[in-house]
Amino acid sequence: MSVEFTVYKGSANGIVEANTTHAPPTGNQVLVKISHSGVCGTDEHYKQADMVLGHEGVGTVEQIGEAVTDLKVGDVVGWGYVNKTCGKCEQCLLGRDNYCPTREYYGGANFHQGSFGSRAIWDAEFLFKIPEGVKPEHAAPLMCGGATIFELVETYNIRPTSRVGVVGIGGLGHLAIIFLAKMGANVVVFSSTESKREEALRLGASEFIATQGLDKFDIPQLDFLIVTTSFLPNWQPYLDAMKPRGTIFPLTISFDNLSIPTLALVPRGINLQGSAVASRSVQKRMLEFAARHKVEPIVELFPLTKGGVEEGMQRLRDGKVRYRAVLVAKD
Amino acid sequence: MSVEFTVYKGSANGIVEANTTHAPPTGNQVLVKISHSGVCGTDEHYKQADMVLGHEGVGTVEQIGEAVTDLKVGDVVGWGYVNKTCGKCEQCLLGRDNYCPTREYYGGANFHQGSFGSRAIWDAEFLFKIPEGVKPEHAAPLMCGGATIFELVETYNIRPTSRVGVVGIGGLGHLAIIFLAKMGANVVVFSSTESKREEALRLGASEFIATQGLDKFDIPQLDFLIVTTSFLPNWQPYLDAMKPRGTIFPLTISFDNLSIPTLALVPRGINLQGSAVASRSVQKRMLEFAARHKVEPIVELFPLTKGGVEEGMQRLRDGKVRYRAVLVAKD
Repeated sequence: MSVEFTVYKGSANGIVEANTTHAPPTGNQVLVKISHSGVCGTDEHYKQADMVLGHEGVGTVEQIGEAVTDLKVGDVVGWGYVNKTCGKCEQCLLGRDNYCPTREYYGGANFHQGSFGSRAIWDAEFLFKIPEGVKPEHAAPLMCGGATIFELVETYNIRPTSRVGVVGIGGLGHLAIIFLAKMGANVVVFSSTESKREEALRLGASEFIATQGLDKFDIPQLDFLIVTTSFLPNWQPYLDAMKPRGTIFPLTISFDNLSIPTLALVPRGINLQGSAVASRSVQKRMLEFAARHKVEPIVELFPLTKGGVEEGMQRLRDGKVRYRAVLVAKD
Repeated sequence: MSVEFTVYKGSANGIVEANTTHAPPTGNQVLVKISHSGVCGTDEHYKQADMVLGHEGVGTVEQIGEAVTDLKVGDVVGWGYVNKTCGKCEQCLLGRDNYCPTREYYGGANFHQGSFGSRAIWDAEFLFKIPEGVKPEHAAPLMCGGATIFELVETYNIRPTSRVGVVGIGGLGHLAIIFLAKMGANVVVFSSTESKREEALRLGASEFIATQGLDKFDIPQLDFLIVTTSFLPNWQPYLDAMKPRGTIFPLTISFDNLSIPTLALVPRGINLQGSAVASRSVQKRMLEFAARHKVEPIVELFPLTKGGVEEGMQRLRDGKVRYRAVLVAKD
């Protein structure tokens, strides 16, 4: 049965409302009735593109194609940044499907589907069952933000004994603090001012550094550093704060060059590790961990309407969201 | 018995000859009669410093302190960049002694000892026995150059199935090709012109790319890239040539910033891994491997005299050495 549904797309001037009619899901496809969607910084990058926005979707399976075997109508599912991979390349075969060179992902393909809307049609292989006990408004920010953090933990072997710096407390940063604290790591938070100190400590940080005006951090050195700010920091004090062979993850998607003194990197064996979203195996481990440890992102709720999308995106743009905006459907 | 010996030091204007008298080795110290020394780019950095030059030394144990148990007079030994570590810090306890924060190393300590001279006194723990079958003129360049390459193989898990790019064919680059080919890896060499193609293939490279004028390399992608040039390359074509999650080792010691497009690093999970010299365990594995696989650096020999030091350093400065200058003592 073909269902007509609403989607919210980017446009040259801002947000527009659009009605599209889709064929029913066929083959391995699933029609999801969206209940919640996270709002991510990446949505902002595409707000002027002719595509449906949103990639942290959660909802209920409404129809399934004839080849779908692992999902049934009524299942609560979520999806994130990647929507399809080839399954055949070296990266896929290694289980690193997030790096499949022909992956279909948000902003690169499937411009007629997104999580800012009433429904979406996706391949069953990239829909993840939301475990019982994880509320959908919490699940939504986990689908991309949480997965991006947990990829670091799982793939780069962050340990409960690790001392991990987190730069910036926003959507990604607050999720990093929560996940790292729940896994027993030693979390050191860097934020420009004192305003988020209490929150950071409450979320599980061991130490908090207000960085404004500091050109040196007088702390024991770090094994890992997760940079979540939307701009690249002044690197020197962070480089000095790393242990030899420490790893820095610049999660920031910036159009600038990443410029670091060679002499800070080479003699001390420092590692600059790019990382993007998560493989499916990590995505599943993340959800299992989140359910078992009651990982609850701090969210601000907005209605999943044209007005709600605009308001949520505006607050994110203004840097006011504490800490992830989530859109909620009315019914 | 106190022995007077000659050392060649840096100075404000160039190379000077100096005679110093040393007390006999005490405790864990060893007096080595130097037979060979490699000449490395790092020596060039210190040519105007008031210190004895040279850090790829090979020679024969001449006297030992009363606490030395594992070396005896007559043993052939070598040493490299690091001369002493604390043995107590986290890095030492992890076996990463090359990153001991209080390590004593060439240019940072022991300014009265070096391998450009007739003798040197070192702690027994940082002298490595040269295995039988490794000629001393081959051992010398292995002590720092060879160790620096083998550290990458051992510590970052370069595999016989790996496809590894080597940028630049000089002292380090030619050692990288030899070691990687001997371990069965797939070696792709990048050099500015065609002039070293035959040599690279003879040393074991599978492919050779003359990079001059190319802004794109039309080759299957690489798992690892070892950058050995004395200047930082134009990164973009190399970044495009990396597999997702590939690792780039910028071995270059440059005073410039390492500037790389963030968007080339993050979405594809590329890793920029600093690395410096080798731990002692890797140093020993390297020598064992070199002996068993007959690793023979290509060397140009110069006399270990003031004139020989000057000539060797000048040829290195001029980029003419094929591929490592080695100084040889007369007796």
